[in-house]
Amino acid sequence: MSLESTTNWRTWKIDGDAAAETDDDIAAEYPLTFQLDGEEFATIVCSPSALEEMAVGFLASEGVIRTIDDIASLRIDEDRGYIYAELRHKQSTAKTNVSKRFIGSCCGKSRQFYFMNDVQTARTSTSRIQVTAGEAIRLMRMLQQSSAEFQATGGLHNAAICTADSLLAVRADIGRHNALDKLLGYCLHNRVRTADLIIAFSGRLSSEVILKAAKIGVGMILSKSAPTDLALQLAHDLGITSAGFIRGEKMNVYTHPQRIMGSSASSS
Amino acid sequence: MSLESTTNWRTWKIDGDAAAETDDDIAAEYPLTFQLDGEEFATIVCSPSALEEMAVGFLASEGVIRTIDDIASLRIDEDRGYIYAELRHKQSTAKTNVSKRFIGSCCGKSRQFYFMNDVQTARTSTSRIQVTAGEAIRLMRMLQQSSAEFQATGGLHNAAICTADSLLAVRADIGRHNALDKLLGYCLHNRVRTADLIIAFSGRLSSEVILKAAKIGVGMILSKSAPTDLALQLAHDLGITSAGFIRGEKMNVYTHPQRIMGSSASSS
Repeated sequence: MSLESTTNWRTWKIDGDAAAETDDDIAAEYPLTFQLDGEEFATIVCSPSALEEMAVGFLASEGVIRTIDDIASLRIDEDRGYIYAELRHKQSTAKTNVSKRFIGSCCGKSRQFYFMNDVQTARTSTSRIQVTAGEAIRLMRMLQQSSAEFQATGGLHNAAICTADSLLAVRADIGRHNALDKLLGYCLHNRVRTADLIIAFSGRLSSEVILKAAKIGVGMILSKSAPTDLALQLAHDLGITSAGFIRGEKMNVYTHPQRIMGSSASSS
Repeated sequence: MSLESTTNWRTWKIDGDAAAETDDDIAAEYPLTFQLDGEEFATIVCSPSALEEMAVGFLASEGVIRTIDDIASLRIDEDRGYIYAELRHKQSTAKTNVSKRFIGSCCGKSRQFYFMNDVQTARTSTSRIQVTAGEAIRLMRMLQQSSAEFQATGGLHNAAICTADSLLAVRADIGRHNALDKLLGYCLHNRVRTADLIIAFSGRLSSEVILKAAKIGVGMILSKSAPTDLALQLAHDLGITSAGFIRGEKMNVYTHPQRIMGSSASSS
């Protein structure tokens, strides 16, 4: 079985008083269940591409693994939508920590964490990357041009890991978080040094997106869309430069603007 | 403490070679933990509005309650971000079923379910609502005009429960699913008969969105955005009319078009 990331669907297209029947390209959505050391760990829905990278990234993001070497084996049953992961060192408590609320007066990184496992896995950035506003805008344009599927279906989010002038890898998913997990998996799989890299992202900057950027280890995230306040507090606390609403020649820089030269705030 | 749904954030706005510092309106994101009968049940992030409705809708959507009468008490600690719910009839197994993968050859509703609790809670629609394409397009326009916060921050999703010609209630959230949970809570709280109502929605039509529409009990969902194939399969199987890309005078109707008169497919 080969999984397709788009499918055809019979669609009635209405335009004013006219109506026409046609086949439309629709983004595929695929339920995938993680079995971790023989136990059901989580079920997600995703775009059926780069599943192995996504599995690695998801397990790392959830704090179950730290490096690719922590995985003893990974097997995907595409027909049934199951991933079977075996860890090198069994962690019977992995699941219980993942989604437990964290309430701490201070954890040395940020007061804004709300999950236990984020406290352990999200790193504070000391990145020395610098880009111009023009470079940031160009990366976002390259991201948008890179996705034929998005252009066909309108239903996918794109994420790329970048240097100041090129996209190293682009991953797409119907889920914003999955696209970032695929990038994290790509980086772990290829042992990419991420500290001085950038993420370009089509989706909104929520707290979970910033946490995933911190887990990937980059010092900058660029987005086409809007941020939330909790995302910006986390980006501030974790040393991550965040910019949103990157459209045309415009962008908003929200945190650590010194890494975007020309933002006239290099002392902040 | 009064929770605000937007906050100010110092922002560097870049436009070509110009840069200006300003305060921008940013959507608030609020972590909220559910304590169910004294046990931690789930932590979500949401927009801090209509929290009681969202709590009711979330518990119903997760299959923990069926009606508002199943809740003995509901208390919100806004400062700490906790909701304490006590059920009238304790369900020690409530949590374990929620996110367990469902694999069934046939469950009488759809082969597309992937969570156990959806099998129990998502209803098949027998709605007799009918609207014209013009009415559907007008509802979507009213939804977009209704949200001052979205216009300020660009970061919120909107959902409304509607008749053919008016919005009965509009709810907004940074999370697509939360906006629908708030509507579900509104409907349960006010014992609204939903079978012949419509949901108008700003976000994409994913499987989870269709499942939430089925749980609310409507026969039609209208969206500004793209669908996924799994969402359309579920909408087809659950008897729900789905339409997307509703922009200007255009719309795409994907399932059960007979409820949208003028779609020239009333026999399908």
